[in-house]
Amino acid sequence: MRLLSMKTERGNLAGIIMGEEVLDVTGFCEIIEGRGEWVEADNDTATYHHIEGAYQDALDLVKHGPNWPARIIAKLEGDSILANQCREDGVLVPLAKASLNPPVLAPGKILAVGLNYAAHAAEQNAQQPETPLIFSKCTTALVGPGDAIRLPRISEKIDYEAELAVVIGKEAKSVTAASAYDFIAGYTIMNDVTARDLQRRERQWARAKGLDTFAPCGPWLVTKDEIADPHSLALELRLNGVVRQSSTTSDLIFKIPQLIEFISQDLTLRPGDIISTGTPSGVGVYSDPPVFLRDGDQIEITISSIGALVNSVIGYES
Amino acid sequence: MRLLSMKTERGNLAGIIMGEEVLDVTGFCEIIEGRGEWVEADNDTATYHHIEGAYQDALDLVKHGPNWPARIIAKLEGDSILANQCREDGVLVPLAKASLNPPVLAPGKILAVGLNYAAHAAEQNAQQPETPLIFSKCTTALVGPGDAIRLPRISEKIDYEAELAVVIGKEAKSVTAASAYDFIAGYTIMNDVTARDLQRRERQWARAKGLDTFAPCGPWLVTKDEIADPHSLALELRLNGVVRQSSTTSDLIFKIPQLIEFISQDLTLRPGDIISTGTPSGVGVYSDPPVFLRDGDQIEITISSIGALVNSVIGYES
Repeated sequence: MRLLSMKTERGNLAGIIMGEEVLDVTGFCEIIEGRGEWVEADNDTATYHHIEGAYQDALDLVKHGPNWPARIIAKLEGDSILANQCREDGVLVPLAKASLNPPVLAPGKILAVGLNYAAHAAEQNAQQPETPLIFSKCTTALVGPGDAIRLPRISEKIDYEAELAVVIGKEAKSVTAASAYDFIAGYTIMNDVTARDLQRRERQWARAKGLDTFAPCGPWLVTKDEIADPHSLALELRLNGVVRQSSTTSDLIFKIPQLIEFISQDLTLRPGDIISTGTPSGVGVYSDPPVFLRDGDQIEITISSIGALVNSVIGYES
Repeated sequence: MRLLSMKTERGNLAGIIMGEEVLDVTGFCEIIEGRGEWVEADNDTATYHHIEGAYQDALDLVKHGPNWPARIIAKLEGDSILANQCREDGVLVPLAKASLNPPVLAPGKILAVGLNYAAHAAEQNAQQPETPLIFSKCTTALVGPGDAIRLPRISEKIDYEAELAVVIGKEAKSVTAASAYDFIAGYTIMNDVTARDLQRRERQWARAKGLDTFAPCGPWLVTKDEIADPHSLALELRLNGVVRQSSTTSDLIFKIPQLIEFISQDLTLRPGDIISTGTPSGVGVYSDPPVFLRDGDQIEITISSIGALVNSVIGYES
């Protein structure tokens, strides 16, 4: 399933993609409740859930377990009258008209991995690390699909980094690689935007990687059941239509289960936490000549089985 | 005022210190509401607030503005019958019996400053930085006063760092040093616990500074009105009763207004965010012989005008 968060007149609401449409799950639950078809949850059976407040993001849907969104989809696919009522009530809307947020609105933390593709290490004459190089990005840097990456005042060398991102679904501490998939909710795309001048100048990357709008994320969360092998995905970044990064996640040096085992040693990962797995070669700073982001640029990152994350770039004063 | 969060049978509740007692603000509001003395808020006058759910931490109280906790204190000080009712109802309890959380339960981010005392830079033969060295600590590392610092499996060189911490009270982006105090809620104490072996081995300090229990914080938030000059506070750390760090915040290389101006450039600080301002000399790793934390150790950090943060150390298997 593809789960997301969208901006609506009623605030941020969680959605499920159904073909070319997206279902506002809060609105759906209200309609079901109005029809008196409510079924309380039990331990084993996925059921419609009574809502207490709105579902805001993909994580709210993940928390109910995989059967719940699946059952909603099955219900709608088997009940065209209900589906049409949802359309009439503005609860099932064309995806193209929806304005999306990052799939998780407020993750507790974003951890990311440096030098995790051999070709990216090679392009900067860096050795491949013996253990994962872990750093964090400020959660205040998150923006959604279609949102602008705003060029900061304090840097002139802003670069892109296309990355596969993992969203944690269950609290994980000191878990083994063998069990790591149990703790994953699903996958999305992250652009690990980086100020190269700050990154060079400052020993720690908190600012170089953490400025506002430096973590575009989306367009949605693809639940793990839909991606049999996250290490066989094609990943591509286009800057103004020109391919700048093109690789496959099979080239990841440290695979996702290893990363979760490594990171979760003595460090608790919580539902909604994001691990961005690293970028392949082709970043702007090591291009010849170097390429940095400019006002008006458009960046599209596609990962197969997930989708496309598109963001424009605007100047500080825009 | 001294605002805090405490563990109670009703969950985490915000409290205000009154002499040797602490007031459960949620319980107080319920008593006031039950007496029919409710006053609705207006724009200018501080009033009792109708509660929708419990106040959980110091930030919940800060959000109502400085007049609100002050008015609650004044009300209780002038009404001994009400105060006694609060005591009878378990709403005003001895501070010594309260079990405290970190004053802000879930800050959006913890940013910290490296090498911000000249003597600490000198003890490691490091140059004083020309600009603040900013890094982040995982919010999952937070623990409260009295909570244990748990030695991790993956490090054998765990060290303490006593620090004055600033809690943000108002969203701050690209603010000037001259206006920086407007964005501060108050001050508390942070122990920037660090795995020295990981810090040496890994380029980024996300793990070395971010493992679980590596951010003891508290014992409470002292609102900024009580501290005329945060750069004149005596700071001391005792390990098992022996003074290991002893300095004053007047020795901070980058003062708090400069830090807020620097950090908030193109990076939004939100209410509850914590800035830990750096540690003075005397850390364990540069002691002769080096000292690292061991099972059973007790660490007490005192900062004048704030109080004492005490934590014990326990082994991984304890």
